Amino acid sequence: MTTNHQDAEIGLIGLAVMGQNLALNIADHGFRIAVYNRTTEKMQAFVDSHPDTPGGLVGCATLDALVQSLRRPRKIIILVKAGGGTDAVIDQLAPLLEADDILIDGGNAKWTETIAREQRLAARGLRFIGSGVSGGEEGARFGPSLMPGGREDAWQALEPIWNAIAAKVDPDTGKPLLGAKPGQPIEGGEPCTAYIGPDGAGHYVKMVHNGIEYGDMQMICEAYDLMRRLVGLSPAEIGQTFARWNEGVLDSYLIEITAEVLAQVDPVTGQPFVDVVLDTAGQKGTGKWTSINALDMGVPAPTIAEAVFARCVSAIKEERVAAAKRLAGPRSDPASAPVPEEEREAMLEAIHDALYCAKICSYAQGFQLMRAAQSEYGWTLDFAEIARIWRGGCIIRAAFLQKITEAYRREPELANLLLDPYFTEAIDRAQTNWRQVVALAAVRGVPAPSFAASLAYYDSYRCARLPQNLLQAQRDYFGAHSYERVDQPRGRFFHIDWPDPERPQQEA
Amino acid sequence: MTTNHQDAEIGLIGLAVMGQNLALNIADHGFRIAVYNRTTEKMQAFVDSHPDTPGGLVGCATLDALVQSLRRPRKIIILVKAGGGTDAVIDQLAPLLEADDILIDGGNAKWTETIAREQRLAARGLRFIGSGVSGGEEGARFGPSLMPGGREDAWQALEPIWNAIAAKVDPDTGKPLLGAKPGQPIEGGEPCTAYIGPDGAGHYVKMVHNGIEYGDMQMICEAYDLMRRLVGLSPAEIGQTFARWNEGVLDSYLIEITAEVLAQVDPVTGQPFVDVVLDTAGQKGTGKWTSINALDMGVPAPTIAEAVFARCVSAIKEERVAAAKRLAGPRSDPASAPVPEEEREAMLEAIHDALYCAKICSYAQGFQLMRAAQSEYGWTLDFAEIARIWRGGCIIRAAFLQKITEAYRREPELANLLLDPYFTEAIDRAQTNWRQVVALAAVRGVPAPSFAASLAYYDSYRCARLPQNLLQAQRDYFGAHSYERVDQPRGRFFHIDWPDPERPQQEA
Repeated sequence: MTTNHQDAEIGLIGLAVMGQNLALNIADHGFRIAVYNRTTEKMQAFVDSHPDTPGGLVGCATLDALVQSLRRPRKIIILVKAGGGTDAVIDQLAPLLEADDILIDGGNAKWTETIAREQRLAARGLRFIGSGVSGGEEGARFGPSLMPGGREDAWQALEPIWNAIAAKVDPDTGKPLLGAKPGQPIEGGEPCTAYIGPDGAGHYVKMVHNGIEYGDMQMICEAYDLMRRLVGLSPAEIGQTFARWNEGVLDSYLIEITAEVLAQVDPVTGQPFVDVVLDTAGQKGTGKWTSINALDMGVPAPTIAEAVFARCVSAIKEERVAAAKRLAGPRSDPASAPVPEEEREAMLEAIHDALYCAKICSYAQGFQLMRAAQSEYGWTLDFAEIARIWRGGCIIRAAFLQKITEAYRREPELANLLLDPYFTEAIDRAQTNWRQVVALAAVRGVPAPSFAASLAYYDSYRCARLPQNLLQAQRDYFGAHSYERVDQPRGRFFHIDWPDPERPQQEA
Repeated sequence: MTTNHQDAEIGLIGLAVMGQNLALNIADHGFRIAVYNRTTEKMQAFVDSHPDTPGGLVGCATLDALVQSLRRPRKIIILVKAGGGTDAVIDQLAPLLEADDILIDGGNAKWTETIAREQRLAARGLRFIGSGVSGGEEGARFGPSLMPGGREDAWQALEPIWNAIAAKVDPDTGKPLLGAKPGQPIEGGEPCTAYIGPDGAGHYVKMVHNGIEYGDMQMICEAYDLMRRLVGLSPAEIGQTFARWNEGVLDSYLIEITAEVLAQVDPVTGQPFVDVVLDTAGQKGTGKWTSINALDMGVPAPTIAEAVFARCVSAIKEERVAAAKRLAGPRSDPASAPVPEEEREAMLEAIHDALYCAKICSYAQGFQLMRAAQSEYGWTLDFAEIARIWRGGCIIRAAFLQKITEAYRREPELANLLLDPYFTEAIDRAQTNWRQVVALAAVRGVPAPSFAASLAYYDSYRCARLPQNLLQAQRDYFGAHSYERVDQPRGRFFHIDWPDPERPQQEA
């Protein structure tokens, strides 16, 4: 075990897969990194099996040794179980640190907890960064998207390392770049990280990223289901369709892996792999947090909420199997009447367009959330930068994000992504197909909740007069909640004495 | 001011409209009630203007006087601003009380706070009931629906009063009954109250009631909007349609008042009243709580969530007005092409059926929430009783609730309301129309988020195999989340080493 004192540039606590991979990524880029794990054997085995990294791993058997091995101001990444695990480590660690040392939480912490931790540590003179780390195990190892929030001077101290280890994209096209070999430096790439904002801003943005990811995955599932049940394609054929779509506007990591997943054959049964996978989706909570936050802030995010609910319905498998025998579908059974051969291509094109339009609406909702969070938490977020650092490394990386980056560069104060000319036109071109797909799904009994929620979002948002005038009148009727008038300034409230409206213009 | 010592049967704190009306309702039924308000003048004016109630009002200028005026065990209703207001009153009141006295919170408290308050007061030897009170000001005055939760012995002490003041329905038909004059006793009516369960159960059920109410109101708005924009009817004609619908399966308070609202003319402008009302809906939070609770418990409630989001979209009026000029709708403008005369009746029938089916799904979601809350909070809820006490007094009162009562009486363990034969058949008969309306709304660009979310809920719930197999495969690909197999027992998890699946059957 190498334990040179005070020569490591950064430390890391928690050597599960994510921690190991991030440590190797850091060492690959020439930074000496001190590592600690609660189980010393695990730490030792990890250090022993990677003796020749460019930066070098410094194994530490105790937190004290870890702290002693670091240059000041110390920078220590915590990658343990989010929540109580993080607090336990912080409580042990804080007394060993000195003023201005920096703790970095790289877990999937809830942003409100990050805000609280930052304050608590600031009171002890310590700096705290909550950094979203996206891209799963592969991302951590060879280039994640990193979303740091905290004090700006803490970020400046961390920046060289975060820039080095982050995924890189071509600055012009926004396409992810790969080194000659994994882990090797990439010349001229733009790193997928940027300072997000104070305290919980980084973890907040990471949460919205995950909410958007929930939407993307659900919408891909709906497209798959429609191709299967309405067009009658096999999983392999659907995989080929996704592979083709990956060459166009839908070009993205999730579409790419979907094509691979659908091409996969189950070696046990020889069946298409997806056909042996049980249709019950798990969730870890970030999609739920995003939806709850949307409700709390009063910002519509129905596509993301439907994606979460769809996972909930999928989880009650036994109930669904029982219900399938009792609840009738539409009279003409969709399975028995696939689309005629000659209409297949047009139908696939329509499903493509529905997926694309629904995706635009889902991202619009995610960016609206971040927009609202600014005033809620006193942040100033740079949406072009956020879209920029999502172009590589993370699960939702996509050519699409280059367009969002450009949209917010054109107009940083854009009221809604839907209003950017590129997206306005994109939806306008594709909307007839989108509408037909939502309509057909409804008629044929194939659930497409996210496609439909996106469409209702679009049609509501572009509606100068919604029917909530009736709703306000109802509320005034039974609850005396009062209403505003179209012919009076905002903020003047009126009430009718229902159900005997003899004095209908009483100002409330 | 009458202040006979210890002869009042119940006390009430908080004489805003709801408090005054509830006090009068109680006094009307022969109970002597002591009343207190922070502002003594308000209390005095109230007592002075109602000198001749059958039970009698006892005005109390101090909390001490209020406590002294009550028989033991004391029963005191608190009707103040929910949250901090309730706690402030409790803190002042508790030291004046004796063991086994009963506080009753009749406000719209969050059920989790009611649970906490019950525990806190139990520790001081006091009993606490959190009672949902629905029906608005009119309900409080002449018969609300009352949903009490707390210790059963506390309920028994309160029961005679709650039974007396609650709305009454015909025990056979479930139809609300009215006395000869408002406030007069109703012979043979079944009271719309029942013991719900421990601690927060009453307020929880009241919250779900309100969530369902959000759904009902939104769905009525969607029906109105479709009749207006697709069928081309005037508000008055739509009002007549709702009045007709109120004679059938949709017979309910909300449909009835919608008909009245739409018949109303604005005396200032002579226009239809709804046309002068601004289309920005407010909300007080219970729909939001319901949706958040659904997400938290993992129970799909997309119809209710869409109703909440629809209010959020309605609130950003200026943004919508701006977006309406930029975002294109479908090529054929719906306003320019109303349904041909000869198809009108069929279209109205279809919208009726869509509203009915969507409503069934919305209620199914609400009851699923209560079902899940049982295990979450250790309650045993009687769903037939809950539906029974919603038949009168409250905002969602409807003939429909008689059918739900019967469904849960037939089968108290019903897995989902959709599986009751009455509702299964109702949807089956109406589903073609429902599907056509959702499809037409999508194609024509009229937002119908709750109709669509209900349909996707129905089609998901009756789907034995959902596309979440693909989603689980994606999650295994990028996050090593593992998956279950259709040919293996539940609870065995597998993982493929993507993207090079050389060892595809590794058990995780």
